[in-house]
Amino acid sequence: MSNRFGTLFSVTTWGESHGPAVGVVVDGCPPLLPLAAGEIQADLDRRRPGQSDIVTPRKEEDRVEILSGVFEGRTTGTPISMLVRNADARPGAYDEMREKFRPSHADYTYQAKFGLRDHQGGGRSSARETVGRVAAGAIARKILALAVPAQPVEIRAFVTQVHDLAVPAGALEKFPTLAEVEATAVRCPHPATAAAMIERIKQARSTGDSVGGVIQCRVRGVPPGLGEPVFDRLEADLAKAMLSLPATKGFEIGSGFAGTRLKGSEHNDAFESRGGRVRTATNRSGGVQGGISNGEEIYFNVAFKPTATILQPQRTVDVQGAPTELAARGRHDPCVLPRAVVIVEAMTALVILDHWMRQAAQNGTFKF
Amino acid sequence: MSNRFGTLFSVTTWGESHGPAVGVVVDGCPPLLPLAAGEIQADLDRRRPGQSDIVTPRKEEDRVEILSGVFEGRTTGTPISMLVRNADARPGAYDEMREKFRPSHADYTYQAKFGLRDHQGGGRSSARETVGRVAAGAIARKILALAVPAQPVEIRAFVTQVHDLAVPAGALEKFPTLAEVEATAVRCPHPATAAAMIERIKQARSTGDSVGGVIQCRVRGVPPGLGEPVFDRLEADLAKAMLSLPATKGFEIGSGFAGTRLKGSEHNDAFESRGGRVRTATNRSGGVQGGISNGEEIYFNVAFKPTATILQPQRTVDVQGAPTELAARGRHDPCVLPRAVVIVEAMTALVILDHWMRQAAQNGTFKF
Amino acid sequence: MSNRFGTLFSVTTWGESHGPAVGVVVDGCPPLLPLAAGEIQADLDRRRPGQSDIVTPRKEEDRVEILSGVFEGRTTGTPISMLVRNADARPGAYDEMREKFRPSHADYTYQAKFGLRDHQGGGRSSARETVGRVAAGAIARKILALAVPAQPVEIRAFVTQVHDLAVPAGALEKFPTLAEVEATAVRCPHPATAAAMIERIKQARSTGDSVGGVIQCRVRGVPPGLGEPVFDRLEADLAKAMLSLPATKGFEIGSGFAGTRLKGSEHNDAFESRGGRVRTATNRSGGVQGGISNGEEIYFNVAFKPTATILQPQRTVDVQGAPTELAARGRHDPCVLPRAVVIVEAMTALVILDHWMRQAAQNGTFKF
Amino acid sequence: MSNRFGTLFSVTTWGESHGPAVGVVVDGCPPLLPLAAGEIQADLDRRRPGQSDIVTPRKEEDRVEILSGVFEGRTTGTPISMLVRNADARPGAYDEMREKFRPSHADYTYQAKFGLRDHQGGGRSSARETVGRVAAGAIARKILALAVPAQPVEIRAFVTQVHDLAVPAGALEKFPTLAEVEATAVRCPHPATAAAMIERIKQARSTGDSVGGVIQCRVRGVPPGLGEPVFDRLEADLAKAMLSLPATKGFEIGSGFAGTRLKGSEHNDAFESRGGRVRTATNRSGGVQGGISNGEEIYFNVAFKPTATILQPQRTVDVQGAPTELAARGRHDPCVLPRAVVIVEAMTALVILDHWMRQAAQNGTFKF
Repeated sequence: MSNRFGTLFSVTTWGESHGPAVGVVVDGCPPLLPLAAGEIQADLDRRRPGQSDIVTPRKEEDRVEILSGVFEGRTTGTPISMLVRNADARPGAYDEMREKFRPSHADYTYQAKFGLRDHQGGGRSSARETVGRVAAGAIARKILALAVPAQPVEIRAFVTQVHDLAVPAGALEKFPTLAEVEATAVRCPHPATAAAMIERIKQARSTGDSVGGVIQCRVRGVPPGLGEPVFDRLEADLAKAMLSLPATKGFEIGSGFAGTRLKGSEHNDAFESRGGRVRTATNRSGGVQGGISNGEEIYFNVAFKPTATILQPQRTVDVQGAPTELAARGRHDPCVLPRAVVIVEAMTALVILDHWMRQAAQNGTFKF
Repeated sequence: MSNRFGTLFSVTTWGESHGPAVGVVVDGCPPLLPLAAGEIQADLDRRRPGQSDIVTPRKEEDRVEILSGVFEGRTTGTPISMLVRNADARPGAYDEMREKFRPSHADYTYQAKFGLRDHQGGGRSSARETVGRVAAGAIARKILALAVPAQPVEIRAFVTQVHDLAVPAGALEKFPTLAEVEATAVRCPHPATAAAMIERIKQARSTGDSVGGVIQCRVRGVPPGLGEPVFDRLEADLAKAMLSLPATKGFEIGSGFAGTRLKGSEHNDAFESRGGRVRTATNRSGGVQGGISNGEEIYFNVAFKPTATILQPQRTVDVQGAPTELAARGRHDPCVLPRAVVIVEAMTALVILDHWMRQAAQNGTFKF
Repeated sequence: MSNRFGTLFSVTTWGESHGPAVGVVVDGCPPLLPLAAGEIQADLDRRRPGQSDIVTPRKEEDRVEILSGVFEGRTTGTPISMLVRNADARPGAYDEMREKFRPSHADYTYQAKFGLRDHQGGGRSSARETVGRVAAGAIARKILALAVPAQPVEIRAFVTQVHDLAVPAGALEKFPTLAEVEATAVRCPHPATAAAMIERIKQARSTGDSVGGVIQCRVRGVPPGLGEPVFDRLEADLAKAMLSLPATKGFEIGSGFAGTRLKGSEHNDAFESRGGRVRTATNRSGGVQGGISNGEEIYFNVAFKPTATILQPQRTVDVQGAPTELAARGRHDPCVLPRAVVIVEAMTALVILDHWMRQAAQNGTFKF
Repeated sequence: MSNRFGTLFSVTTWGESHGPAVGVVVDGCPPLLPLAAGEIQADLDRRRPGQSDIVTPRKEEDRVEILSGVFEGRTTGTPISMLVRNADARPGAYDEMREKFRPSHADYTYQAKFGLRDHQGGGRSSARETVGRVAAGAIARKILALAVPAQPVEIRAFVTQVHDLAVPAGALEKFPTLAEVEATAVRCPHPATAAAMIERIKQARSTGDSVGGVIQCRVRGVPPGLGEPVFDRLEADLAKAMLSLPATKGFEIGSGFAGTRLKGSEHNDAFESRGGRVRTATNRSGGVQGGISNGEEIYFNVAFKPTATILQPQRTVDVQGAPTELAARGRHDPCVLPRAVVIVEAMTALVILDHWMRQAAQNGTFKF
């Protein structure tokens, strides 16, 4: 259960890595939105395997088919079902995994939970599941971009750290453009760091190893008032969204873990009046106060562990619990971060749009 | 909306800081559990203001009243309604806040969201709301302790960092006892660090300032199989639970942010057979793989910012947006972490119990 | 579980018949609504026991206390917690029920489900639980009355049948006024029938027996567009709301069961243009087409079985399954319909308001 | 929104009558269930158009494809996505409906709600949506049949009334077999009445008219204890499930509307001990007391209005509100009841299975 995300703009994904297809049903999409498969494809192409020489070479065109919910080029308000056929599935390549649990993968826990598992490429636990998230996120992003024409919501994620290579402090003050992010295969908008990162990833791949890192996401244009006290705080739902992604181990918003080393007098964001509205002089809050957006830029970091799949022999046990060795081989993604950038953006869009609709329902519907 | 947490064992909290009362309704509690108000009171007393000289002096006995769902000493399976009257409410003390937004509090965002706000002590955004969470969490903890008598689930949170004072690396290898945590007012089970932390908090209070820090939570006894792919991963729901707490800015599980600096070959947890079952040789995963518990100890860190309330004049604006100064005064909690320990434990219990019930429903009900 | 109703304007009730109190938490209420306890009391007084000589003589003032969510006379958008203390609880009067299952009550099924039960007055299964529904419904009705000032939503329920006494066909063409409904203790706006009904109820009471009947509910002022295809059709949620009430056995909307005997050519409601908008010439649809309101009057009937509590000896078994006789005695409601009228209205209001908010969220928030 | 049904065994349907496909995603299915497409096909074939000479001649094979959630012949516990391509879509046949609202269809209300509509064959409001329900229901039925091998849950729906032709009172005391139901095209297990019904349907079709009727559903083998107080009573969820079906106007369980004419002393079901367990001597409750199953047979009736599509000219308005005439033509189902039988069974299975899992989660997981 729980293959669904969101309360009003809700998304149900389905599909396994090596089954016939993966897909998503989007329920609650506002009607009358112009929508073409090509717009969704653009985001899927940023997630697609094989797009550069630092990601997995699995060959998938990831061609999306819209099966419902769009009529004569516009959404109808009914569920939008989208499907992507799996093409380059190689079930045979996974025969070893039928009998052995891959370390730090979900093989053992799926077996423990369900009593069986689809061992091919991780089955449901594969990051291939995120195809559906990206497709749904593309719709959410378009809505957010159009919601307030004068102030489109812009969501920009990018890689700020790979292994121990990080963008220098203060080097990314400016909101990066999409072009700056897409300029390099690693999707780090700081060119010098990006070049080093790419080198590091290739190095890891050449030794059959893998690396992790950090993705930062920034959002501007979000109006004040989104986020629900007390359990569905905006940062709580963002944290959940990020920790629901494969390979993530941490989330911090605004000043995050570093902010714990400041005193209150250093950390508080003074209010001021600027441009005709209430603003904060600094933004250690990260655009969210008391769980609700305050109109400032929202920014957060997501930690990704190094890819669990490595091409080195590893100690493990088989399904009977007997010690054995896993001689991993096959395709492998030495660093998931470049492809995860668009997934982080997609999940962010889903969270913000859902909260926008909830805010409208409770606080925008009736005037007393 | 969204004052509800959990899907099967669900909790709805209500109440404002200076209203007549705060409370909670627990829905979905299993029947036949022996339950007395005193058991809930024990946890509330750990959250209570005024319990030591390093927390807010607000005088609240926080006496809990059980209004339903318990009959002749046992739960009936119907909703358990619990209520705590507010005693030491001082509405008059907040007259200044009626007109001015406190920096880094939720005053401005509540106003922006709802068009009005209860300005007294933060109203709904006050940490006083967590009374209900702790009361509900006490029930969840009892159930988890009894679920598998031979292996009770134990949840232990404690303070590992205050301001820049942190427990030395490797100093807390052992699962701390409750007595060790409760031994000091700051609830850090490392006595030397605890003493320094207490000094630092008193120092902050004496200058009208505040400090933040980090709470770690460890859980042992959780069976393999809890956590739902793909959106309701166990760590995703834990992250949401923690980020739904006032003043939290970050969450990391297992190797967390530090783990991003390891290579896959260093980070993977090898499987081995130990004590008759599948175990991992190391535990960088933090007890969760693919969103599902693997039977190892679950551990995670939560970042708390320094308390926003400080007793120093601060620059802000009034409700009309005009610049002004806030001359904060009154009671104040120079460091929320000691009282937050039991709240972190409560939320952890709610997440784990809910997932236990979901696991049982889908995977324990039918045998084919 | 499941003591919650509604998705956006959601209501959680709690409490047992002879526990300390009953109550409700309303989550999702729009802010800024003027609200006083007296407005809620007015509806509770229509539900109150002891209000006339044809209902149970249990003495309950049912005085409501608002514990949260209202500040300086207006709702704040945070949860509204309301509580009514039980006064005339007579636990001792139910000693016999501890050992014996009352026929056609929930005694046996609660025992079977939960493994124990609060036997006093039915515990949670008592109609006393509906106190919380009525309190929440009073808020929903006020919002609906104010939503579109020029066209307030009016909800009017009334008794149309008691035992075999029914209002003559065609006698209630006009939308009854509240005064007409309240004119008699039985809440049937057709005076001649009402008089006969009252007589019938007294007759049943005098023989220790009980009677059932039918309540009709009509709603006008609902705009077109409320109701969600496909599962949360407006009539589906109304049906659920009504069948969730104690003692109900049936629901029909529009032409209902009688309409099954018409041909399509007789049953279809022709469209026409009237008063500047699309109307139907007839209204066999009952105001709902394809699950969505069409702007016509919504009307439906609810069947209530005769009260299960009767003051006659009945054959039953004890908790060990041994045959025995129940010598029922004590207070008893010979006909629940007069008091159920306001409960039907409350549930109707909850359904319509929730759908209004859902409609606004999806279809009123964004313009493309 | 709301294209989802069920809390633990949850079902999301999608698709339009004349879009590329219709389908469903089943979330929460227990793992290890043997499942083949053929088993689902068997139920789809009972719903299929063109299966006899008294239903619509639309040509659809309704061939189901399972896209996920089944691995090597068994369910994996992950979402089961099923798809049926639309074959005999004739978009051109609906040109008239683009401009005119069909009486008693959802054309006008969809337009009012969403601001646009897919006019082809009713788009999302078409009964074609129920393909997904039947596919999901087939899985639920299989689980229920296997849950307690010694006492499989059997769900049998059948037609008891068409227009004014009803099975004689008392003629169907015995639980009908599937063969008896399937013996006639009208799916009424009383042969003489079935013959008359078929004649009546053909007569309606020959005049371009349509007829409605009543379907009864009976369920045996349900253990005591299913159903949640207070809002998710078993009968409440059944009522919602039935009223969520196209063309339904009423629901009654047990004694239903007729029972309102009995006195309590006549209506109550006396308890007795029979076969070693608590039974009721009569079953006016319909197998449900206090919202919870009592182990007796569950039975209820569902009212279907006559099909709104008729082949006679009808008065209506166009999308601009101008009066016009609809010259209906094309394929048409003179009576939906024969095909609706399996849909009623499917929805019943979904409700009962979901409640079974909820019951297990709360009341079967922990022993104190």
